[in-house]
Amino acid sequence: MEPISEVAELFRHQRAVRAFSDREVSDEIVEQVLTAATHGPSGSNTQPWRWIVVRDADVKAQVSEEYEAAFAAAYADRAPARADDRQPFTEVPVLIVACVQVPSTGRAGIQTGASIYPACQNLMLQARALGLGSVLTTLHRVKRAKIHEILGIPEGWDTAAIIPLGWPDRSYGPNRRPPISEVVMRDRCSE
Amino acid sequence: MEPISEVAELFRHQRAVRAFSDREVSDEIVEQVLTAATHGPSGSNTQPWRWIVVRDADVKAQVSEEYEAAFAAAYADRAPARADDRQPFTEVPVLIVACVQVPSTGRAGIQTGASIYPACQNLMLQARALGLGSVLTTLHRVKRAKIHEILGIPEGWDTAAIIPLGWPDRSYGPNRRPPISEVVMRDRCSE
Repeated sequence: MEPISEVAELFRHQRAVRAFSDREVSDEIVEQVLTAATHGPSGSNTQPWRWIVVRDADVKAQVSEEYEAAFAAAYADRAPARADDRQPFTEVPVLIVACVQVPSTGRAGIQTGASIYPACQNLMLQARALGLGSVLTTLHRVKRAKIHEILGIPEGWDTAAIIPLGWPDRSYGPNRRPPISEVVMRDRCSE
Repeated sequence: MEPISEVAELFRHQRAVRAFSDREVSDEIVEQVLTAATHGPSGSNTQPWRWIVVRDADVKAQVSEEYEAAFAAAYADRAPARADDRQPFTEVPVLIVACVQVPSTGRAGIQTGASIYPACQNLMLQARALGLGSVLTTLHRVKRAKIHEILGIPEGWDTAAIIPLGWPDRSYGPNRRPPISEVVMRDRCSE
C-alpha cells in the first residue's frame, strides 16, 4: 500500500490487513507506531497502558496456538470473513499486544476500552500512513487465561487487543461505507 | 487551534477540549467528522454503531443535568482534572452520542468497545485536523438508565461515549507523553 501523509485521505484508506509480506518491520517503525499510540487519549489522561512487542518465534507460536483454537471455536458454524487472506500469528512479522490496567472495581468493562482502543486506533492509523497494514483482533480473549500465562500478564492488567503488524501481502483499495444518513440521528433515537 | 493536514503532526496535537467558543459548528463539519467515524474499523466489519447529533437545547439540558450529577458523585472526594476548563453540556455547541449495538450475549464488555472507540477516535482526530476540539467522555454511564430514556435509546443498544464538539475556547499546545520505553516491553511482560 502507498504511504499516506494527508489526514484527509487517511481514514478511508484504513483496511483490515491479516496477511503480510516477508519484508522486515524495523524497530524504528515499531517505535513510530507505538509513539502514535501513546499520544492517544485516555480517561483522566491516566495512560493506563503497556504495549508488548512480540517478535520471538516461540512466544508467537504459543500465542498462535491458543488464538487458532479460539478462532476455530468462534467459526465452528459460520464462515469467517476473508478466511483466505488470514495468516496465523506465527507468520506475522510483529504482534503488538495492547494491555490495559483493570479499574479498581476489579473488572474491565466497555468503559475500560475507552482508555485503550483510541490508542490502538492511533497505532493502526500511523501504520497505515507509513504503508503498513494491521488489524484489531480481540478473539484471544476467549483463551485469555492461557494467553496471559504465556505473556506473563500480571494481576490488575488485561489484554484489550492483539494487533498484527507488517507490510501488506498486496495492495488494498479504500474501505467502503454506506452514507452516514443511515447511521446518524438528530437529538434523539428515531427508529 | 490551527488546522492540521499532515498525519505526522496529528496525534501529538490531540488534546482534551472541554470548553468552546460561541462560534457555530456547521452541519458540513458535523458530517465530515461523522464520515471519518464511520470509516473506522469494527469487529468483523459489522459497523455496529449509530450516532446521535444533539443540538436541541432541551435535550442538552436534560442530558447535562444527569451528567452533572454523575460528575459531582465521581468527584465527591477528589479534584477533577482541569475543572476550570470544563463547560457543562448546555454550553457545548454539539454533543455526539456514540451508540453501539450490544452483543447477542446481552451485555457490553471491553471487547464491545473495540467496535466503537476506534471510530470515536477517528471522529476526534478529524475534528482536530479541522481545528475543532472534542473529548471522549464516558461518565454518563453512571446515569445510563436516565440518559437512555432521555435519548430514546432502544433495547439492544448501549451508549459508549458522549463527545462534546466545538471550536476551542483557546489555543492548546501539543500533548506530552513520557518516552515509550516506559510502557513498551519485548515479547513478554517484565516488571
